[in-house]
Amino acid sequence: MEQRVSLATLGVSDLGRARAFYEALGWKTGAAPGDDVAFFQAGGMVLALWDRAKLAEDSGVEDGGGWGGVTLAHNVRSPEEVDAVIEEARAAGAHIVREPAETFWGGYSAAFTDPEGHAWEIAHNPRWTIHEDGSVELPR
Amino acid sequence: MEQRVSLATLGVSDLGRARAFYEALGWKTGAAPGDDVAFFQAGGMVLALWDRAKLAEDSGVEDGGGWGGVTLAHNVRSPEEVDAVIEEARAAGAHIVREPAETFWGGYSAAFTDPEGHAWEIAHNPRWTIHEDGSVELPR
Repeated sequence: MEQRVSLATLGVSDLGRARAFYEALGWKTGAAPGDDVAFFQAGGMVLALWDRAKLAEDSGVEDGGGWGGVTLAHNVRSPEEVDAVIEEARAAGAHIVREPAETFWGGYSAAFTDPEGHAWEIAHNPRWTIHEDGSVELPR
Repeated sequence: MEQRVSLATLGVSDLGRARAFYEALGWKTGAAPGDDVAFFQAGGMVLALWDRAKLAEDSGVEDGGGWGGVTLAHNVRSPEEVDAVIEEARAAGAHIVREPAETFWGGYSAAFTDPEGHAWEIAHNPRWTIHEDGSVELPR
């Protein structure tokens, strides 16, 4: 199994609301208005929004109903960019659960949940490289 | 907010077991044996394993205790490769929740959960492009 992730699907109860949230962040999907799934090209992978009950069934799991142990992060190139993205997220309707601040691991970050409760961290990690195409590389 | 994901962190109750599972799939981490987090370079992003309770606190969420609406997928270049990866996952101790088969969306896929219950789909989607570096591109 190659060491990569192709797709992260976020299960949603209200696709229109979830889609509008990511579009308000400036993300573009090729989905038509009535489509039952929205795919966003997200760097070299894809972020999808799909009905949560269908996703649970397709994934062969019981839905615990809340957060289930997965948090996504979007890394940026400076602390100031963390502040800026958090303001974009706030304006788009995110619930900011942790305001931007220095972290215990030597970076600077903040966290929000989207309208469906999915968790994101916006982080500046000075030890990670962010390439021009947005891909992230761990230190060697 | 640029349209990309930098990191997916999977909360775990037993880091050694979770790490051993991904290593059994052939993934490499630079983490030292006693580290409390394991980062895997996963294409242009990073997959992390970290204590689930700490992740919930850091993410400002209540832990629902089970699956929480996020499924990852690993796309491959042929149906045969789905079969092969699923056998690797089975051998590594995955719980195969859906055996490889044609899907309602015109592809071929299977699904498993890792030892911590995190959900993965292994999929061949003939409409998506997988570049040589493993990055995935939606149709235009």
